[in-house]
Amino acid sequence: MALDDRKSDGFTFVGTRPNRPDGLDKVTGRARFGADAHAPGMLHGAILRSPHAHARILRIDTSKAEALKDVKAVVTRADFSDKVEFAPGLEGDFWNILENVMAGDKALYDGHAVAAVAATSALAARDALKLIEVDYEVLPHVTDVDKAMLMDAPVIRQGAADYSVPEGMHPNVVRKHESGHGDVEAGFAEADLVIEDHFTTEATHQGYIEPHACLATLGADGKGELWCCTQGHWIVQKTCAALLGIETANLRVTASEIGGGFGGKTTVFIEPVALALSRKANKPVKLVMSRSEVFRATGPTASASMDIRIGMKKDGTLTAAQGTFRLQGGAFPGGPADFTAMCAFAPYNLPHVRQVGYDVMTNRPKQAAYRAPGSPMAAFAVESVIDELCNQLGLDPIEVRLKNASREGTKASYGPRFQRVGLVETLEAAKAHPHYTAPLKPGQGRGISCGFWFNHGGETSVSLALSEDGSAQVMVGTPDIGGSRASMALMAAEVLGIPYENIRVTIADTATLGYNDVSHGSRVTYASGLATIKAARHAVEKLCERAAKKWGIPVDAVKWENGCAVPSGPNAGEFDPLPLADITADMGRTGGPISGHFEATPEGAGVSFATHIVDAEVDPETGKTKVVRYTVVQDAGKAIHPTYVEGQFQGGAAQGIGWALNEEYIYGADGRLQNSVFLDYRIPVASDLPMIDTVIVEVPNPGHPFGVRGVGETSICPPLAAIANAVSAAAGARMRQLPMSPPRILAALKADG
Amino acid sequence: MALDDRKSDGFTFVGTRPNRPDGLDKVTGRARFGADAHAPGMLHGAILRSPHAHARILRIDTSKAEALKDVKAVVTRADFSDKVEFAPGLEGDFWNILENVMAGDKALYDGHAVAAVAATSALAARDALKLIEVDYEVLPHVTDVDKAMLMDAPVIRQGAADYSVPEGMHPNVVRKHESGHGDVEAGFAEADLVIEDHFTTEATHQGYIEPHACLATLGADGKGELWCCTQGHWIVQKTCAALLGIETANLRVTASEIGGGFGGKTTVFIEPVALALSRKANKPVKLVMSRSEVFRATGPTASASMDIRIGMKKDGTLTAAQGTFRLQGGAFPGGPADFTAMCAFAPYNLPHVRQVGYDVMTNRPKQAAYRAPGSPMAAFAVESVIDELCNQLGLDPIEVRLKNASREGTKASYGPRFQRVGLVETLEAAKAHPHYTAPLKPGQGRGISCGFWFNHGGETSVSLALSEDGSAQVMVGTPDIGGSRASMALMAAEVLGIPYENIRVTIADTATLGYNDVSHGSRVTYASGLATIKAARHAVEKLCERAAKKWGIPVDAVKWENGCAVPSGPNAGEFDPLPLADITADMGRTGGPISGHFEATPEGAGVSFATHIVDAEVDPETGKTKVVRYTVVQDAGKAIHPTYVEGQFQGGAAQGIGWALNEEYIYGADGRLQNSVFLDYRIPVASDLPMIDTVIVEVPNPGHPFGVRGVGETSICPPLAAIANAVSAAAGARMRQLPMSPPRILAALKADG
Repeated sequence: MALDDRKSDGFTFVGTRPNRPDGLDKVTGRARFGADAHAPGMLHGAILRSPHAHARILRIDTSKAEALKDVKAVVTRADFSDKVEFAPGLEGDFWNILENVMAGDKALYDGHAVAAVAATSALAARDALKLIEVDYEVLPHVTDVDKAMLMDAPVIRQGAADYSVPEGMHPNVVRKHESGHGDVEAGFAEADLVIEDHFTTEATHQGYIEPHACLATLGADGKGELWCCTQGHWIVQKTCAALLGIETANLRVTASEIGGGFGGKTTVFIEPVALALSRKANKPVKLVMSRSEVFRATGPTASASMDIRIGMKKDGTLTAAQGTFRLQGGAFPGGPADFTAMCAFAPYNLPHVRQVGYDVMTNRPKQAAYRAPGSPMAAFAVESVIDELCNQLGLDPIEVRLKNASREGTKASYGPRFQRVGLVETLEAAKAHPHYTAPLKPGQGRGISCGFWFNHGGETSVSLALSEDGSAQVMVGTPDIGGSRASMALMAAEVLGIPYENIRVTIADTATLGYNDVSHGSRVTYASGLATIKAARHAVEKLCERAAKKWGIPVDAVKWENGCAVPSGPNAGEFDPLPLADITADMGRTGGPISGHFEATPEGAGVSFATHIVDAEVDPETGKTKVVRYTVVQDAGKAIHPTYVEGQFQGGAAQGIGWALNEEYIYGADGRLQNSVFLDYRIPVASDLPMIDTVIVEVPNPGHPFGVRGVGETSICPPLAAIANAVSAAAGARMRQLPMSPPRILAALKADG
Repeated sequence: MALDDRKSDGFTFVGTRPNRPDGLDKVTGRARFGADAHAPGMLHGAILRSPHAHARILRIDTSKAEALKDVKAVVTRADFSDKVEFAPGLEGDFWNILENVMAGDKALYDGHAVAAVAATSALAARDALKLIEVDYEVLPHVTDVDKAMLMDAPVIRQGAADYSVPEGMHPNVVRKHESGHGDVEAGFAEADLVIEDHFTTEATHQGYIEPHACLATLGADGKGELWCCTQGHWIVQKTCAALLGIETANLRVTASEIGGGFGGKTTVFIEPVALALSRKANKPVKLVMSRSEVFRATGPTASASMDIRIGMKKDGTLTAAQGTFRLQGGAFPGGPADFTAMCAFAPYNLPHVRQVGYDVMTNRPKQAAYRAPGSPMAAFAVESVIDELCNQLGLDPIEVRLKNASREGTKASYGPRFQRVGLVETLEAAKAHPHYTAPLKPGQGRGISCGFWFNHGGETSVSLALSEDGSAQVMVGTPDIGGSRASMALMAAEVLGIPYENIRVTIADTATLGYNDVSHGSRVTYASGLATIKAARHAVEKLCERAAKKWGIPVDAVKWENGCAVPSGPNAGEFDPLPLADITADMGRTGGPISGHFEATPEGAGVSFATHIVDAEVDPETGKTKVVRYTVVQDAGKAIHPTYVEGQFQGGAAQGIGWALNEEYIYGADGRLQNSVFLDYRIPVASDLPMIDTVIVEVPNPGHPFGVRGVGETSICPPLAAIANAVSAAAGARMRQLPMSPPRILAALKADG
């Protein structure tokens, strides 16, 4: 692209759609994922897992396994640090992470790790697991969130360090969130119609295609290296270092390419185990999870039990809203009860609102983040009730939402006042979209929903180095989970004024860049993007200094335009523009290498909203639902690479369709997971999905130089609700339980007559 | 070590001798060298090499090799860029590098690459080479430097881009260096004794134990990665990018651990070939040289033919010196004729001095750097003549050198005035050393020599990042060829005030740090050390800012002491010292990650001098020489890690012993190398060497914050001369040819009667 081919929005590169830099590698199989690492002398690990949902571990005898010739190490909980006393920002969660990585006194869920083996082959390692003897005392268990809160429920864990049981509640309830404003009872009294209803969702898995995999090496000198697929290698670094009892800096962690994460790869599972095995065997150890292990022993979403009460006037004005959200987070604290409660009513300007969230432990794997953790289920419950209010009052669901929509200055349900936000713009765009007024066929229903997510800034370090030929290398620390190398290169190209193709963006490892938070919270394009822009500007300052020196004029008489230093002010026109590559060509002789750097914790992430429109068709004979049309309208702030923004929108909708219609963790009465493979846990495949249409709304975020808001998470907030509303319309029966699988649809049809 | 355990020199960490961070990895086999990389789907490469010293390539037919099922790519010169037009700093040398990597119209030496194959196994690749048909027209050749200068010598190359033949000379002479000052004839007229003599040295190889090895991957999108053993991955990056016709930034190069380099791994040989094979096969390709390929086709030293004339007064005062140095650099320009000439007389304060160097091409592999390239042979010739002058005038060789030694303010033979230098101090220390006055046994002789090297700064980028637990990661770009990770960690520890063990030093790859020159020129501890100190000080500034903010006092009222921010000035004692780890613990919330950076081209590398003392014993029956005692005295400026300084001293002496006594490239009349394996090319083994004693002299370099001078190269400058002087004394016959192998010793004994 020519540098003077400036777009109508003033940007040259930002907003274009070049191929992603990692594209060829990924389609030709050259990209290296977690299991693609190899080291000479490498061993293979395997993990023994509890078959019980809840059991005391009385004895582990590893001697028979250790006696095998091919077995080089066996580890149990005793091989990890018994202190884990210091890890800033993680103090509270540390013991929990260790306990989840390798069971201590008790196995807390079906699949909980109890021992691990490293052997000369994967087969030998798996065979050796069978020789490890574990004596269990099986204990009563509970896997349902409502049952876990009953006062006679089994106690999952007693006295763990970092949680406080709300007064009068069962110790499985580990945290309570409460927020809101106004007087909800007074608000309900003003309403013409108040609807109160109960909703549930089941746990789902992120369903990333790549299982967790790593290659670890750790020596007796306390120095190690780890290659793994993760959304954030610095958190892996500090967590593993603490669990192994070494200094953070002495563990170098490299993030491989990642075959999906969606929040599920923001913590550690097998990585500390591989390191412990490596230290014991003094050899590199590779560990790769099977799909069944991924389902049983990583971090699915929380399941939820929710009560919603909302009041509305006849004209559609919301008068009050109240919600109680019980989130099942597995055998550890940390479920998203607070996020669920805070997101629930965020799209609406409510004079009276109150939300309560409970974080509840059960005998299930520790939940992990999954795109906007906690928000989709809240939207499902709240937007279903609003839909029902609109139905009963005969109001248009978009008009009602426009009337009550949060906008700049609105006091959010969770506390702060919103800055510039784009909910109204998404609703207007949805209203104007042909989809919203297209005729429906018989048996079809249409649903809409809004959704909200906070978005996040987080600690960020970016460096940028120029090569002598004028090409540039950008080092970021946030693993590329959605095309961020392309968007970073576009932003750097915009600042430097050099072609996109001449910029290489690398995900630096922990030993070669300052600290970076995880790729989560939709923070990457916002925070790493901001840092890339600022690092590029830092390099531009230095380029201008070199030009000023060469020309013998003050540096503030040099400006940067279209990839060139240009004399300005009184010196304008005095010298020809000096292209970047002419400055870098002899940079070694004019002062040394030119790099730019930026480290900060950006605080200006802008919240984002979306509105989805769904048409669904229900077969009353079989209960099977088909999504026949789907439109995502979302505020991106500024779409750096529109194709990948659209990809995020479509991906959120597709995952939402799975969550809404089919996906669920099914536990037997024995507390064992019954569907731990993709044949039994049904994620949507291409033939299940319509083409998902997208509309990018751009209401700039004032906290980012180019206006970027996060886009990765908000897109999964509306689907459960929008689909439920469409299905309820099509079926003529309100759907209150997810997934809306055929048996549930048939049951609902029957119950509603 | 306690932080208050301050040493007498004011340093806490600098000057101590902790284990090197890479020690355990290297002794347990975990360290990964060039051949230890692996990628899924990787192919293996092999290179077809010319059996002729000089031949026109009439035809290459690769079709039979390409037809093999296991062969995935065959490349010849046509598969490289035909432009290589842009590569700042390398313009002149580029075509030469390409020509050396893969022959074009002519094969220029025995072993010159003419084609290469990538196949599914190393065996299949080697088998396929046999099916490549090459028609050669064999041309006359020349391998001797003096013969190559005769006007009827075969012309190696005609009309290559970047060299200029001195008027009236054969086109094989590609460059002339001339420097000096005063009027040498007038000077010789003042002398009481003038000696003129002729000396020769043969080419030797650096003898690194690890052969060149790499793993390359390059896609049709022009993006690639390369893992290789090299002394400088940025030079590999920009050279390979130019040879393959891609942007520098789009090739990521990682330096593996390196099993020896000594200057020989500062350019490319197989790396561009592996990349070209990978691009053609669209698979990763591994290439590993055999030992024979290392000897035949990498870069040995230049061989030399030298005429020296020196005048001395009876009191030992040198009156004038003149030298002519003919350096055989193989089939390409770039021999070290200028360095040889410039170093020759540098140790001495000479009123009249003149040196001329000629860079001469022959049908041999392109010479490469080998520790202080060009200096050892010059010292051999010059110091032999000075020794002979001392002998004939009955003067003590140390006293004579002290009388004439270069010191601060001396106008160097090659031009500039010396700053503070330590030659006198090394001579005084040698004189005081018990070795110098120890009695000799019959048949033994003692020799001494001085040596000189410039040392070098070079482009340098270093970053340093702090972890939340207060440990630190230092990113340098100079491969660790002599323990530099240890010395960088010591210097960072000194500035930060945290334990050595809590600092990890990583050799960053080209995609994760700004530009760095090669690990050569003894520049690493000087330049990367200076950059590490400055990057650490940059981080300390930020730490002090955080403390100032926390305390609410101005930042200039905070000083850094023993790893803590301490209030000073009017605020002294107002707050408790704040340790580094207390500041980093919540750095994410007090402004973001803390890192320090430094990029520059340090110009203050200090030259260094050494004096060696050698006792040798010659068996007059067999001509076999034994070095019975060896003492190295050298000025290190400041020894950061004395053990590794001593290691450099000892290594230089050991390699010098091999060069002096046994090592040489032996060419047959057919122009083929006759001794391309370690059985025939004899490097010293442990039983050939005495314990090499070392004395570290410390005359601080004013151009480095801690006084560091380079130490890696000067240590190989005196050995050839010191050993020759010892052997000459023991044999009673002046040795003028290296190596002083038994047949040459016997011949000299016979000639001198």
